[in-house]
Amino acid sequence: VKVRRDYPDPQAQPGEVRVRVLCAGICETDLQLIRGYMGFRGVLGHEFVGVAESGPFAGRRVVGEINCACRHCDLCRRGLPTHCSNRTVLGIFNHDGAFADTITVPQDNLHVVPDDMPTDIAVFTEPVAAAFQIPAQIQVQPTDRVVVLGDGRLGNLCAQVLAGLSNHVLVVGKHANKLALVHALGIATAMRDEIEAGRNADIVVDCTGSDTGLPTALKLVRPRGTIVLKTTVAGEQTLAWAPFVIDEVTLVGSRCGPFDQALKALAEGRIDVAPLISDRFDLSDGANALEHARTKPVLKVLLDVARA
Amino acid sequence: VKVRRDYPDPQAQPGEVRVRVLCAGICETDLQLIRGYMGFRGVLGHEFVGVAESGPFAGRRVVGEINCACRHCDLCRRGLPTHCSNRTVLGIFNHDGAFADTITVPQDNLHVVPDDMPTDIAVFTEPVAAAFQIPAQIQVQPTDRVVVLGDGRLGNLCAQVLAGLSNHVLVVGKHANKLALVHALGIATAMRDEIEAGRNADIVVDCTGSDTGLPTALKLVRPRGTIVLKTTVAGEQTLAWAPFVIDEVTLVGSRCGPFDQALKALAEGRIDVAPLISDRFDLSDGANALEHARTKPVLKVLLDVARA
Repeated sequence: VKVRRDYPDPQAQPGEVRVRVLCAGICETDLQLIRGYMGFRGVLGHEFVGVAESGPFAGRRVVGEINCACRHCDLCRRGLPTHCSNRTVLGIFNHDGAFADTITVPQDNLHVVPDDMPTDIAVFTEPVAAAFQIPAQIQVQPTDRVVVLGDGRLGNLCAQVLAGLSNHVLVVGKHANKLALVHALGIATAMRDEIEAGRNADIVVDCTGSDTGLPTALKLVRPRGTIVLKTTVAGEQTLAWAPFVIDEVTLVGSRCGPFDQALKALAEGRIDVAPLISDRFDLSDGANALEHARTKPVLKVLLDVARA
Repeated sequence: VKVRRDYPDPQAQPGEVRVRVLCAGICETDLQLIRGYMGFRGVLGHEFVGVAESGPFAGRRVVGEINCACRHCDLCRRGLPTHCSNRTVLGIFNHDGAFADTITVPQDNLHVVPDDMPTDIAVFTEPVAAAFQIPAQIQVQPTDRVVVLGDGRLGNLCAQVLAGLSNHVLVVGKHANKLALVHALGIATAMRDEIEAGRNADIVVDCTGSDTGLPTALKLVRPRGTIVLKTTVAGEQTLAWAPFVIDEVTLVGSRCGPFDQALKALAEGRIDVAPLISDRFDLSDGANALEHARTKPVLKVLLDVARA
């Protein structure tokens, strides 16, 4: 990873808008891409707030959905543009990302940030949307016993979204300081070593990013319960599958979510993201920022790119 | 495996009825139990038709659900008796089965066989019910592209049930003769080596009983599609789980199903089971019957126990 000053400015393709980046967030996926995930080469960064330079939102602050869809393949026509067979993904796959002065984004992907929402809050729209994808895929009832595995950025946000739907959310982690942030929001927490394999959770959400997540989820979920996989683990994993059949467990893979719901929840203060900001660096110091995010027990590291 | 003539008659516990067995079917699970699955020791057999010796169905032919529930644990009270924490399972777990002159069955588990239904048809109620568990768990639309992996007993029955709901069912197998039976029912078939990994199936049902089933299903299912796991594989398996997240695939484990729907479908002739009967043996020749089912490319092997 290095900061380049000679990198060419991105050119907007038809339907795209140039966005002058104000602020960007470092995500676990960025750290995985650096380790070689997806074989990506280019500009990283898919969580950002910027100012649109043209189009109907010109001059306004915007956030952008990360999947750039072709709008004509079978999956797009089925209404699944985030699964477009020809998609590029901002900062992840075949499309330069937001750790730069400018990024090009399809106009259709842009959402206007409300004027009274600080940029530091709006920059969380993408991961908050990913958390809102859970209730977009499965029903969550107020009485459901929900366990979130992982006390990191995504675990925290998923717990907050789910705590708006169920009165019985428990976050299981291994970092006392990160669990304390969750606890301060009024959500129950437990250290990983303290929990018993009670097999009585209706829903278990794996946000560990670790290959221990799925086996742990299987020990906690009740028969006919649901496991939601939010984080990917690279490579292959060894596991006994028979419990899925014997206990009729449902596993749901879950990825990107609805930006509109995320912006609304952030605007209404239903999701508290400010405590997640651990550190901020200037974009010119981006290599150190990534190294810091990779090696330190941080939550969200932000990159400041320009002033609004 | 041996035939014992000195084995004590089973004693009915409170709530149980003695059933004089007429006919029983050999299932893949029986063959796995012989190999040590579940550590079961006792009388095998969980697919059967018999005559109730007492209770409201005395003197009538009955079939029996296999999970014997306590009716008071948390899961029973939630309406999930097939997942009862204290359950025994006929011929599978802590309860002697139907490869015997008599079996004891909870009265609540019994269903009367219609008088005009041959015993040879009624003996398929349990596996047909397992096939009907699929639409009990997931929605199947007429336009859904459904792939059933496996051309054996369960694959055939699942395909028939699903073909009643979708107009696009394809059975993938590796035995031309077994696929021919499916084809004769008007259901499309393909040899395993012929199919392309098109990733356009809405639903893939794994009835292979093999650890190749789930990886194959992942190659066929579309993004946001559903994989139904119908058969257990003993031990641990290796798999890359990331595609579940990236493609937001749902995996549903599926086991025992509704006997009432199975009996109704058999009575109405909507499910054709007669062609599945490969061989029949007397119970006294049971060891040879199991060896035959284990080693020969058969479909259903029946054990004749007594005459009605």
